This record gives sequence, structure tokens and C-alpha cells, in this order.
Amino acid sequence: MNILDKIMKPRSIAVVGASTKQHTIGSDIMKRLREYGYAGPVYPVNPKGGVIEGLPAYATVLDIPGEVDLAVIIVNARFVLQTIDQCHEKGIKGLCVISAGFKETGTEGARLEAELLERVRRYGMRCVGPNCLGVVNTHPAVRMDACFAEALPERGNIGFVSQSGALGGGILNILRDLNLGFAQFISIGNQADVNAETALEYWEGDKDVRQILLYMESIQNPVNFRRIASRLSKKKPVLALKAGRSAAGASAASSHTGSLAGADLAADALLRQSGVIREFSLKNLFATAKVFANCPIPKGDRVAIVTNSGGPGIMGTDAICEKGMKMAELTDETKAKLRSFLPAAASVRNPVDMIASAPIEHYRQTLETVLADPNVDMVITIYLPFLGLKDTDVARAIMEIKAAHPEKPVVGVFMTKSEFFTAFSAADVNVPFFMYVEEAVEGLARLNEQRLWIERPEGVLPDFKVDGERARNIIRTALADGRDQLTTRESIDVLDAYGVRVCRAGFAADEDAAVAVADRIGYPVVMKMTSKTTSHKTDVGGVRVNIGSAEALRAEYRDLVAKLDERGLLDGLEGVIIQEMVNGSREMVCGIATDPQYGPMLMFGLGGVFVEVMKDVAFRIAPVTDTDARDMVRSVKAYKLLQGARGTTPADIAKVEETLLRLSQLVTDLPFIDELDINPLMISEKTGEPIAVDGRIKVRRCEAESALA
Amino acid sequence: MNILDKIMKPRSIAVVGASTKQHTIGSDIMKRLREYGYAGPVYPVNPKGGVIEGLPAYATVLDIPGEVDLAVIIVNARFVLQTIDQCHEKGIKGLCVISAGFKETGTEGARLEAELLERVRRYGMRCVGPNCLGVVNTHPAVRMDACFAEALPERGNIGFVSQSGALGGGILNILRDLNLGFAQFISIGNQADVNAETALEYWEGDKDVRQILLYMESIQNPVNFRRIASRLSKKKPVLALKAGRSAAGASAASSHTGSLAGADLAADALLRQSGVIREFSLKNLFATAKVFANCPIPKGDRVAIVTNSGGPGIMGTDAICEKGMKMAELTDETKAKLRSFLPAAASVRNPVDMIASAPIEHYRQTLETVLADPNVDMVITIYLPFLGLKDTDVARAIMEIKAAHPEKPVVGVFMTKSEFFTAFSAADVNVPFFMYVEEAVEGLARLNEQRLWIERPEGVLPDFKVDGERARNIIRTALADGRDQLTTRESIDVLDAYGVRVCRAGFAADEDAAVAVADRIGYPVVMKMTSKTTSHKTDVGGVRVNIGSAEALRAEYRDLVAKLDERGLLDGLEGVIIQEMVNGSREMVCGIATDPQYGPMLMFGLGGVFVEVMKDVAFRIAPVTDTDARDMVRSVKAYKLLQGARGTTPADIAKVEETLLRLSQLVTDLPFIDELDINPLMISEKTGEPIAVDGRIKVRRCEAESALA
Repeated sequence: MNILDKIMKPRSIAVVGASTKQHTIGSDIMKRLREYGYAGPVYPVNPKGGVIEGLPAYATVLDIPGEVDLAVIIVNARFVLQTIDQCHEKGIKGLCVISAGFKETGTEGARLEAELLERVRRYGMRCVGPNCLGVVNTHPAVRMDACFAEALPERGNIGFVSQSGALGGGILNILRDLNLGFAQFISIGNQADVNAETALEYWEGDKDVRQILLYMESIQNPVNFRRIASRLSKKKPVLALKAGRSAAGASAASSHTGSLAGADLAADALLRQSGVIREFSLKNLFATAKVFANCPIPKGDRVAIVTNSGGPGIMGTDAICEKGMKMAELTDETKAKLRSFLPAAASVRNPVDMIASAPIEHYRQTLETVLADPNVDMVITIYLPFLGLKDTDVARAIMEIKAAHPEKPVVGVFMTKSEFFTAFSAADVNVPFFMYVEEAVEGLARLNEQRLWIERPEGVLPDFKVDGERARNIIRTALADGRDQLTTRESIDVLDAYGVRVCRAGFAADEDAAVAVADRIGYPVVMKMTSKTTSHKTDVGGVRVNIGSAEALRAEYRDLVAKLDERGLLDGLEGVIIQEMVNGSREMVCGIATDPQYGPMLMFGLGGVFVEVMKDVAFRIAPVTDTDARDMVRSVKAYKLLQGARGTTPADIAKVEETLLRLSQLVTDLPFIDELDINPLMISEKTGEPIAVDGRIKVRRCEAESALA
Repeated sequence: MNILDKIMKPRSIAVVGASTKQHTIGSDIMKRLREYGYAGPVYPVNPKGGVIEGLPAYATVLDIPGEVDLAVIIVNARFVLQTIDQCHEKGIKGLCVISAGFKETGTEGARLEAELLERVRRYGMRCVGPNCLGVVNTHPAVRMDACFAEALPERGNIGFVSQSGALGGGILNILRDLNLGFAQFISIGNQADVNAETALEYWEGDKDVRQILLYMESIQNPVNFRRIASRLSKKKPVLALKAGRSAAGASAASSHTGSLAGADLAADALLRQSGVIREFSLKNLFATAKVFANCPIPKGDRVAIVTNSGGPGIMGTDAICEKGMKMAELTDETKAKLRSFLPAAASVRNPVDMIASAPIEHYRQTLETVLADPNVDMVITIYLPFLGLKDTDVARAIMEIKAAHPEKPVVGVFMTKSEFFTAFSAADVNVPFFMYVEEAVEGLARLNEQRLWIERPEGVLPDFKVDGERARNIIRTALADGRDQLTTRESIDVLDAYGVRVCRAGFAADEDAAVAVADRIGYPVVMKMTSKTTSHKTDVGGVRVNIGSAEALRAEYRDLVAKLDERGLLDGLEGVIIQEMVNGSREMVCGIATDPQYGPMLMFGLGGVFVEVMKDVAFRIAPVTDTDARDMVRSVKAYKLLQGARGTTPADIAKVEETLLRLSQLVTDLPFIDELDINPLMISEKTGEPIAVDGRIKVRRCEAESALA
């Protein structure tokens, strides 16, 4: 048996800190447990004894006669540890510590929390909190409301985890108001033990929870979160609101929860790779949840609109196009059928405008007809009040038709009085209703996103054959030199060792050697002299570009020697570097950055002088799979440049993706790489290959030294 | 007297087409007029006579005994013209034609509408409609509800114009539901006569209307709209929702309203230049209206948050930063004062977190203290339900404090039950309340936008001294040649005539002439041969770049002649073009595009291969003022490149703006210019000047020919 069941499906509950004093948590929790109809025995615990909510209070949990699954602890923080000791003695395995006064208050509190966790681990318990709002399970067999939010829970299929206690309570109120029921709620508070990942994993196999909502201010263990969420999100939609996006917001977040808020860029990448649908406001979070609660995942992205007013039809069309979905092209058959019963002034093209006078029967017939069209994947039905029609009657008609077509999502837009939206209870609706068409479209766009995520191939981490030892040796040399920053040459060589296509180059001490190197690299080449005495190469003609053949190279070499001789500089000449000449106008950038919390991230985008200005870059947490790399490359605007805009050679996009995958493998093998930049990653105009022309690698020295020792 | 007063403030009303039949417009309008308490006499008109709403019906308007200001016409479209004739005979000047069956139905209807308009003009009448929902004025001295929307109007300070009838009705319902009263409502329908501009102009001097809401699907006369709106918007906020943004949406728009929907890009530029706040959903439109209805324009952009829960504080901070506003830095004095009464666990930095247990008194004191802080321009107050507190009590306390500080906007975020939002009527509130913090922030961002617009300098259209005759002559030559497309040279010359800094160039027939041209242009130069016989210039060394001196130029010229002689090609040589050598890595683009409805638009942004891919460009309708040009240049991301990112020479930004202003003058003088492209407008690395290196002008031939004849 999962110990979390002791918390979420307890057969008996002790409330430690139960109180007779009105408007206290100790009184409210007792009331809520009774009021909501918790099925098992509830034992109030209070050293003063007395009768609480009609039940005799016990001095300690040890005095409780029966077995106890869950202890809800509300006592002052300084009594929490001894309470846990007593719980252990009593054999209680489930804890929900509502008491505040832990990590969120500073070092002393953090110490106390560490001791709490140590006990929980040692005793083999699981613990929600501390500093939390409680837990709820609305399942008819459980009916546990051990939480001090204002509203009584309404039954539904959502599992909801909140990091913020007070906000969690506010959300529960709103859910009720939106007729959004939920199955289980966990206020994780300081998440000393149970955190979002615990909840995700717990709900993976729970049929009662069909979608998951997360309110987070930080992600505790990104690697674990990604592992669990990316698997779960293929089965159940996971929606998240992560606050603390801006630098200012993040600072507010850390003062609030006492937890380190990672860079939002990294969090965003992580959620994306985990298949989590990220919302940026509670409003959108709830709207999306309402759609997932009532709609199946669609088969495609073609939306039809059925309306009795043109205006919202236009606004809906605008929103559908902006969200990257398509306006469904109705079949001729559908149009003919619509034409057969709709008035002449109606429009039978999508958006189908039945005009203002449309009776309920037209809503029925039109929706039925449009849902039957094979070109339609989803439908938005819009109603504006018309003389003599009742909005709830129209809604009922829509819900009846929808019930006969469970396979396609149907959303209702009712621009009517707000009473309408509370006229039906969560249990009565099978269609999400919104006031505004944009909300409906956003909901459908999220369904479509979930469809794409489910259809998205799992992705693999390719295992390239690389020369790891060569890379490690180059880094060892730099470390031995006392450097954490590799030279350009060293950086390029590490990339080369990992199979990244780098700009080829080689040293040659004389003319014949130069030709041999150039033959190996391929023409055209650049020749750069290296000299002990002359540092300004270009002033003496020491750089020759675009050399097309061995013959030309010999001529240039001789000319160089002659010129140096003329000036008496020949003595210093050590030889020449022969470098591949990369012609191209498209400069991309890719690399690795390390987030202190989320670890190494891959980056790809438009390079050169545009990196900072256009910020046309994508990030993903390492390691990246082949599908991740594919997504990354396609998610930047500069992808169009890669495809060969304005007559340029189409880039070898598979090779671009491979470059990212090789970098991912590099930082997975050598996790002490702190930063890596390839800028530019030039797209060769000749072959379309991406070529690393300049590179820069920095390692974390101590880590690197101990790993390479 | 303004004839529109006859429609909006009539002393008596005839309802032509009044009916005894329930649930018809002819019955409803009569009912609404009586029910809402219209003060003057109402005369039902129906050829069948009878008693309607307790009043005797007249056969025609001519049978009405008293004078009539406004005729509301509901009869079948085919009787509308004769009704108007009778109205004229009766001396009625105000019409509101609700009847449908005009332009929206096709050519026949359009003809009927043209006849209607001709009569209205001839008779000196003003007419709202046809195909509209009616008009409303909630002023206590008028109380006219001549409209068949479902909800009775609630009194407020909004003037509302809707192009869509049905949607207008839906909006009126929602306004009522949001406790948003309005002053006047005009459903312009097909806008044969009265349109949005008429309403704007009418309301400019009407103290009863303090903000204006527009729902538009098209803008009829953009020039007129801009003239009126840009003046009015400095006095009263003008908010607009313009539907038909996407190509698909625009096509839905034209089938719906029978009017040509202009490109959204142009509409967006026009609204921006007119100081109109554009919203993209009704929801946002109403949220913004609610804020303007209850808040003054702030003095700055620094926002403070007062909350009893950390989570929404973080979310608010995120939203404030994302909307380009600032989190206020509270003074030490403020912080000390807050610290004096808030509990130790509270945070006295912005966001001020009073913690969950904050009683009403803390809300009062904290809000009072924060409002008194000179570093605070606006305040968001957040409330999450807490045991024993009543949300309406907290709201009342906030409204009391707000009443004592009318100079600073205060917005409330109440994450509580939805009943709360209808607990107060529009007349009772002085603070806009929202459920979600993001809505509050969006509202404040709009207030801030309005502040910036009011503070924005008026802007002037500079009058540059140009050589207009030279430009016209160049175009005449092209036209005489049968071309509507100018050559590069001609295009560059037209730009030069208008004082745009172009890449200098000149033709030279021999060596001495080449040196003379180069001396005039300045070194370095490029030399390109022109030959009758040799088209592939580069193959024969016909292009020489980066020539730094007269000496070098002579050497290159002689070398060219020698090389051509060698190959027997000297005979064809006509001479050389000497061209300024422009070095620079930053390629911008600017130009002129013509929108079929909005006319010529100026464009500016990142040029070269990035134009289509990055779409980092800004548009404004011509003519552009100096402030418009300033805004344009600063609104693109590439502005950072102009400022001199990564060690480049800062661009001469005043000259960039001047280039746009000169183009604006060019297209104003020569309005037959259809397209003009300067790509690239190169930023000289030497001087930072913007230089037109390549140009392309196309004219509309017939227009140009008649203008230049």
C-alpha cells in the first residue's frame, strides 16, 4: 500500500491542535471534516481535553483508542517535533502539518524543518507541509475536507497541487464558482517531503484524477520532475501556473516561499519538454481546466464556428488564426444541408452565421450537421441573446447534441447574463461555456496542443561515437595550465572530438606541407602565416583568402616568402595555418548555459550581431532528445533562413539538429562544462552544412579537476 | 443646434412600425421606451391603427398632432423611402432606421441604401442605421432606450458605438452585468450617414460622455477618423475593438457587414497614431473601460501591491514587469511606518505582504501609508478570503481610503466568490474590482498608456526644402518610356531630389573625369565600367572596390583599360560609374506601401535578408509627424543595433527619422507613388549616417500621368 493513501484516503484522522475557539484553524478543520461528511472516525487532540464539535478531545494521539491513518497537525511549530514522535509511537504513518514557522521564517525555521524531515524519513512516514492549507479528497468513499479554504469542495476530476497556501484557498473558492469540481487537493506548503512530483506520481495510477493542475513558485528537483511529468502528461493533461517569471517576481517568490526560484527561461524549457501546458494567469489556467474537464482530445486542428451573430464569428476567426489553428472548410454536402433549413440571409460558410433570429431548432440542426462534417475537428457555438429565447434552453439543446457526438470537442460562447454561468452545476454540464469567444478559442488551442504532444514521437537520446578521451585530454591540458577557459583552438578541438563539424584547419611548416594540409581540408582555403616576430599579419600580407587550388596555394606561399624576405622578416616565420574557407551569410548560434537550479541547457538561434538584439533563440534542458532538437530548430524565426530564404542554399537541417544532439552528449559526458558557445555556427553557402567557425568553452574547475583526476 | 441632438436628445419620438405583436421589435421598442421612463411624448405609427402600449397608433407620421424630433423606423425595407419622405413632410430631422434589408444583402440593397442616403442629405436630416439596434441615452433628463437589447441600460459615463447590431446588444448585456454604466449608445449598423467619426465628434463636447468605446469591423474614412480621434483622445480615452484582423477574419467581416475591411496592419497603425487604445477581445475592452471609469490618469508608471497573500503578489509583479511598468520602490519612511503596525512575518517591501491574517484595519493603514508614498503612482490591493473577514467589508474599507486619495489609481483584486462582483452597483464603486491580478495590471497598463499619449508632444509635419520639379521630371521620363517602375538610378535620383541621403555616384567618360567625380564624392570609391559590348563586368575585372585615393583610381583605370585592350574589348567601353563605397554591417529597410483603404503607409525596420523572416518592422499611415517617426524608429527591436550594439558606430538616429519624414513628404507631394523601397538603408560604419544604397519606386500610372500632365 502506498503510504500516501494514508494521507489522501485515510480510514481515520486525528486533528492535533483541534480547538473550541471559533474562527481558528483548529476549529475550522474539525468543522469542515464533519460538515463535508468524512466517513471515518475523527479524533480531536487537545491537551486541555474538552468536547470539540461534539467529540471528546484526547490529550495526545497516544490516548486515542483506535488506529489512526492521518494526523493533521495544527499545533505551534515548537510542539510539532514532539507531536511527530508521539505519532510514531502511535503507529501513524500519514502527516499533514498545517503549522507555520518553518523554512519560510529563516534559518532557525529551516533547521526545525530539517529535523522534521529527518524524523519523517526515519519513521517511514510521509508528510504534507509544513506551512500548508491541508488536503482534500472528494471521492464519495472518502469525502475528506481537511483544509481551511472558505468554499466546500465540489466533486470533479481534477488533481490540484498548490505551493502557496493562501492562494490555494483562493483557487478552491474560484474553482467552486466556476463549477469546476476537483478530485483531490494537496497544499504542499514548504514541501519538506511531499512535493509536486510526489503528487504527480501518486496520481498517475489514480483513475479518479483525470487532469492535474499545478500552482508552483519553484520546481524542487527538475530532473525528477521532467522524468515523471513527461511520462504522465502523455496520459493526463498537466496544466501549470509557475509564478516568479520576472526578475522582480522571482525575488518576491523567494522571500515568500523561502525556496530558490530558478531562471524562468529554464523553467519554461523544462515544462515544455515535460509536456506540461503552461498558463500565465489563473484565469487562463481555469479556463483551460474547464475545457479539459468537458472535452475529448480532438483529431485535428480544424475549427468550425456556429453563431447567431456575425461579430463574434469574426472575432473567433481572428483568434483561431492567431492561435495557429485552421478554420474548417465545410464540405459541399454540409453547406447544402445547412442551406436547406437556414434562412437566405444566413451564411453557410464557416463561420456559419444562422443570423439573430435563429430558433433553438436551428442551433440543434446546425450543430448536428457541422459535427457530422469530416472536415471539422472542433466546434464553437456562439449565442447572443435574442427576443423570446432562453439562454439555458439553448445551452441544453447544445449539450444534448454534444452528448450524441462525444468524440469531438464542443465549446459554447454565451454572451449573456452572468447568472447563466452558475445556472448549471459541474455535474450537469458536458460543454464548457464561456462569455467571450477568445476564451473558447484559447481552450481549443490547448486541446490541440495536448493532441500534438500526445502525437509527438517519444524521442531518443542518440549515442554518437565520439573521442571522449581526446576531449578530456584537451581539458586536462587547460586545467594543468591553470585555466578554466579553453582557447579557441582547444574549444574547437573538443567540439571536433565530439563530432561537431568544425572549421577545418592545420599547421604547415613549409610549402609542401601546406599543400598536403589543404588537400586534406579541401579548397578553397585561407592561409594565415604564424610568425614569432610579426604579430600584425595583415599588414605584411600574411593572410590570403579564397585560395582555390594547390597551384594557387604554392604561388601565394612563394609570394608570402618573397614579401617577408623583402622586408627582412623571413627569419621569424614558423609556418602557416591552412584553414577551410567557409562562405556563408547565415550565422547561427548554439551553445550550452548552466542554470544553477536546472543544470545545463542547450541553446540555438540566430547568431552574429543579432543574438542579443533579436533574442531569436530557443532553450532546452539537457539532455535533449532528437524530437527536442527538432522542436528547437523549428521554434526560432530564423528557421526560415535555414530553409533557404531569398535564394540561399537550404541548410542541412538534420546536421543542425545533430550538432545540438552532440553538444547535449558532450555536456552529459562532461557535466563540468559550465558554458559553451559556438558563434557563429555558419551555414555553408556551398553545402548547406552548419560549421562551427568560432568556439568557446569554460569549465567549472574544481568539478572538472576531480572528474578528470 | 446639432441635428444629432434630435436623435440622441429628442423631445419627442415617433415609432414607425410600432406593433402590438409580442416579441417583435415593433413591440419591444415601444415597451422599452415606456419602461425606461422616456420623458417626452412617444407616438406609435402603424397603418392599421389600434392601441399600442396604451397609446393610440397613427396611420402615418403626418397624422401625429405634435412636433417630432426623432423617427425610429422599423418597417419593412421597401417602405423605408416613403416613410422618410413623409418624415420630411412632417419636418422630422432625426432618423434611426432599425430595418434591415440594405447594403448587407447585396447590390439591390446597396442601391436602396444609396437612395436612402440621398434623401437624408437632400432633406437635411441625420440618420443612424439602417440595419441597426437603435440608440440609447441614459441622462436623467432624456432616459431614452430606443433599442432592442435585452438589458435595461445602467447609467454611467461611457459613450459606446457598435458597428455590429447583435453584438452591440450582447455588449449592453455584459456592461450591465459588469456594473459598467454608460451614457449614450449608438448602433451605427450600415453607417450610411452617422458613423464612428460622427459619434466621436458629437461626444467631444458632451460632458456626460467621459470615455468612448468603439466596436468596429471597418473604418470608413481613415483620414477623417485620424483627424477627429487624435484630437479627442487627448481629452477622453477612446478604446476600440476592431475585429477582422486575420485574413480569414477579414473575409468573414466583409461578408457580414458588406463593407471593405482594410488590412489590419494599416488599421493598427491608424489607431496607434490616433491615440486610440486598441483591445483585442471584448473582455479586455470591458476591463479597461472599468478602470477608466473609476481611476484618474496616473502621474507615472510605478505600481505598489498590497496583499494578504504572497502568490498573487508574485504574479502581479510578473505582470507589471511584462507590461513595461515598474515596481515602486517604497521610501524608508513608508517601510518604517508599515513595520510599526504589521506583524513581523509581513513583508514591508513592495509587494507589501500583510500575511493571511491581516484584519481590515491593516488594509486601511497599509493602503493609506502606501498611497502617501511619493514613489508610488498606482496601487493594486489584493484580498484572498480569510477566516472571519467579509469581502464586501474589506472592499468598503478600500473604497473609503481611495475616496480620500482621488489623485492615484487604486485597483482591487478580490479572489473571492463571484457574488462579490455584483454586490455593489456601478454608482456605489470608486475602485474597479477584478478577480485576477493580471486583469488589474492590464488596466493599469492602459492608464499608463493613456498618460504617455497625453504627455506625448503633438508632433509636427516638417516642411523640407526639396527639388520637387526634378523628382517630377524623372517620373515624367519613366512615364514617357511607358514604365510605371522606375530604374534603380531613377529611384535613387528621386530620393536625392527629396534630400534623402543616397549613395553618391556619377558617370565619367575618361580617367580625368573619373578622378573629378571621385573628388566630388569623396574616397573610398567603387569603380564600375559601363560597356556596350561586355555585360559581365566582373569577369573582365570591370568592378574595382575600395579605391582610396586619386592616385589609386588612376592606376585602376589604366589597368582596366589595359586589360580590356588585351582582350580586344576596349572599343565597347563607354566610361565608368564612380560610386561612394559604403561600409557597414547594419542594413535597415524603409519605404512606402499603399493600402487600398487607408492610403500610403511608411515602413521602417531591420532590412536585408531579415525583412521577411524577422518581420521587425513598424508601419505608420502617411503623413507621419516627427513624433510618429521617433516612435517608429524606437518601436523596432533593431533600434538597439542603431544605438551601437557590440562596438558598432552609433547610428545618426535623427537622420534616420529625417529619412522617414522626407519619404512622408514625398508621398504627400506625389500621392501616385504606389510603392517605394529603400533596401538596404545602410548605416555607415564611418559616420553613422543612414545611406540609401538601393532604391525602387513604382507609381500608379494613370494617376501619375494626369497629375504630372
